[in-house]
Amino acid sequence: MDFDFLHELSTPAHTKIVMLVMDGLGGLPLEPGGRTELETARTPNLDALAASSALGLSVPLGPGITVESGPGHLALFGYDPLEYRIGRGVLEAVGLNLELEPDDLAVRGNYCTVDATGVVTDRRAGRIPTEVSKELSKLLTTKIEDVEIFVETVREHRLAIVLRGSGLSANVSDSDPLKNGYAPLPVRAETPEAEKTARVLNLFIERSRKVIEACTPETSANMLLVRGFDKYPHFPAFPELYGVRAAAIAVYPTYRGIAKLVGMHVLKFDGNTFADEFTALEKNWDDFDFFYLHIKQTDLAGEDGDFPRKVSLIEEVDTLIPRLMALNPEVVIVSGDHSTPAALKGHSWHPVPTLIYSQCVRADGMAEFGERACGRGSLGVLPAKHIMPIALANAGRLMKWSS
Amino acid sequence: MDFDFLHELSTPAHTKIVMLVMDGLGGLPLEPGGRTELETARTPNLDALAASSALGLSVPLGPGITVESGPGHLALFGYDPLEYRIGRGVLEAVGLNLELEPDDLAVRGNYCTVDATGVVTDRRAGRIPTEVSKELSKLLTTKIEDVEIFVETVREHRLAIVLRGSGLSANVSDSDPLKNGYAPLPVRAETPEAEKTARVLNLFIERSRKVIEACTPETSANMLLVRGFDKYPHFPAFPELYGVRAAAIAVYPTYRGIAKLVGMHVLKFDGNTFADEFTALEKNWDDFDFFYLHIKQTDLAGEDGDFPRKVSLIEEVDTLIPRLMALNPEVVIVSGDHSTPAALKGHSWHPVPTLIYSQCVRADGMAEFGERACGRGSLGVLPAKHIMPIALANAGRLMKWSS
Repeated sequence: MDFDFLHELSTPAHTKIVMLVMDGLGGLPLEPGGRTELETARTPNLDALAASSALGLSVPLGPGITVESGPGHLALFGYDPLEYRIGRGVLEAVGLNLELEPDDLAVRGNYCTVDATGVVTDRRAGRIPTEVSKELSKLLTTKIEDVEIFVETVREHRLAIVLRGSGLSANVSDSDPLKNGYAPLPVRAETPEAEKTARVLNLFIERSRKVIEACTPETSANMLLVRGFDKYPHFPAFPELYGVRAAAIAVYPTYRGIAKLVGMHVLKFDGNTFADEFTALEKNWDDFDFFYLHIKQTDLAGEDGDFPRKVSLIEEVDTLIPRLMALNPEVVIVSGDHSTPAALKGHSWHPVPTLIYSQCVRADGMAEFGERACGRGSLGVLPAKHIMPIALANAGRLMKWSS
Repeated sequence: MDFDFLHELSTPAHTKIVMLVMDGLGGLPLEPGGRTELETARTPNLDALAASSALGLSVPLGPGITVESGPGHLALFGYDPLEYRIGRGVLEAVGLNLELEPDDLAVRGNYCTVDATGVVTDRRAGRIPTEVSKELSKLLTTKIEDVEIFVETVREHRLAIVLRGSGLSANVSDSDPLKNGYAPLPVRAETPEAEKTARVLNLFIERSRKVIEACTPETSANMLLVRGFDKYPHFPAFPELYGVRAAAIAVYPTYRGIAKLVGMHVLKFDGNTFADEFTALEKNWDDFDFFYLHIKQTDLAGEDGDFPRKVSLIEEVDTLIPRLMALNPEVVIVSGDHSTPAALKGHSWHPVPTLIYSQCVRADGMAEFGERACGRGSLGVLPAKHIMPIALANAGRLMKWSS
């Protein structure tokens, strides 16, 4: 089923769809036979919602494949992540409101520490504080030949760098050795067209090194690494594709960036708590048909291996579900972009518990939102990219197909 | 998801994967509402393993499609059987250690009985004893024009024939009428390039008829039928594809042949009982990362319509599971290449009960290995070719994908 097919069937309706994404939602028990984070969490509101929902386990990309958030989200939005690829540099640049132009080159960077012999001793420069990092990034914005170079701090040591100028190419090699204990590599052109880009990047790195050394005696940052070079991808726009006015509510830049890449309107709102996100949902309720609401912290707790924190974050989200349901959405999806079991301290390949609620869904009648309940659900094990068409159908937004 | 994709993600690890294939494992109840062979069998060890496993029903090729062992196994090994095709003749030749060369033509043959009018009265020549068949096959090995012809008995009346010479083609028709009561057909060239092959095969059949008649007055064999002409397929090698040292433990030639076709190391071992196969597993444990262990008899019992025998064979395999688990494999897969319900006396399209065990699998907690338990499992109804990526992920042998 391709986008043209879905687009042809899409039809207007006065219905609202909310997709609540708890990042890294899927988990694992800490002991064989035990309960996962979601199964452990006391979630009376999600359980009640589950009773009126169809349940299943969604697979972001394919069996056994562990994904990053980018492809995981694209799949939830209905885009095949193998067909629609976004570089991480692009994602972060877009998330930081660095408005990319079609010929710009987006690059990921990070501050690092090198020793007197030039070897990287800490690729994260001791996780330099975000505020210090931001001040430093302002000083690095520059112009080399005809190329403007914008540097923005994503968080701590992490940077998004955008190059704007003529004849730029993504076919250059990383300077980041990816491990401590190695010297940074010179950026090399992988094709003749990329020679200017490599030259400009090497000059930029050298110039930046001097600026960083001069300005931050109080931090351990004294160098900059670059990797991941991408041009802006042009994806079909979610709102046109599905015929919905789509809004994104997310605190973290990357997720705001993904939403922007698929053409969603990224809402500005005050605060950065889960409750603030639900308030933004309420305030903007009348102006959109589709809301993507992103919860980041569940993933971070999973990555930290902090099972109890992930449990309590899920419980916190659960307390907000009544505010969502009070808005009377026609369709609610609760899922994750991938699993991040605390037991594995990282993303994993395990399918993600998923719930689709609507007045006309064929509910499984299981009053429990958890991995095993979802494993017995009538959605079965489904590719994540199938969630959107099912949600649209439940929202009365897909016509009957006629050959 | 193609092989290049999986291959790029594969990463080394010190983990062991065991794939235990009970041929024709899936079954059916003899009466509506009854239990299948696997559900009837007393399998305390498999049931205990199931409790710590993810369960599902695997589909070898597609919904409703019944397969032979070749495609069924390729799917278990992760190869799409529609894309990677092996002729049965090739399979049997390889299984018999007939080392095929790239331009050889492999052919299936069988001894048969024809009456005085030339009509086939028994396509299996009364299932001529294997020893008699082997003696006879030695006499048939010959050379016609520049074409060497090797004849080997597979078992009883069944033969593997290999033609080696210049300008051979697989585009020839079968001589086997496939039913008793018809005369053997002359082999016809289906393209001009195949004329030499047809001519040689017809001469070979005529010459063989005379040899068989002269030598076996004590058996009912007096003729030879040929069908299924194939050249050697060149598949991506399983060990390189997945980055594992892979060994096959199988008694029957066909299965040793399939393993060889995908580049597995086929282990030599003493004896031919199930216990001997598990002993071979133990003895070779340190030298490989992936073990394919094949149990043939379950399929034969199913084909014979012998429900109680299939039950007791499954029970026999169950008693050996503790020896497997004592080796502490990181991942265990128990499945079949297809279903062979005794009730149907043959292969069937029914999905195959499948269990994937590992320390980090999301276990369904159902302490029962059977068709209905698997039907409620969180692996869902899954294409058999998805089993390998899931197993590799559980073995820590697949990296996170980045776009």
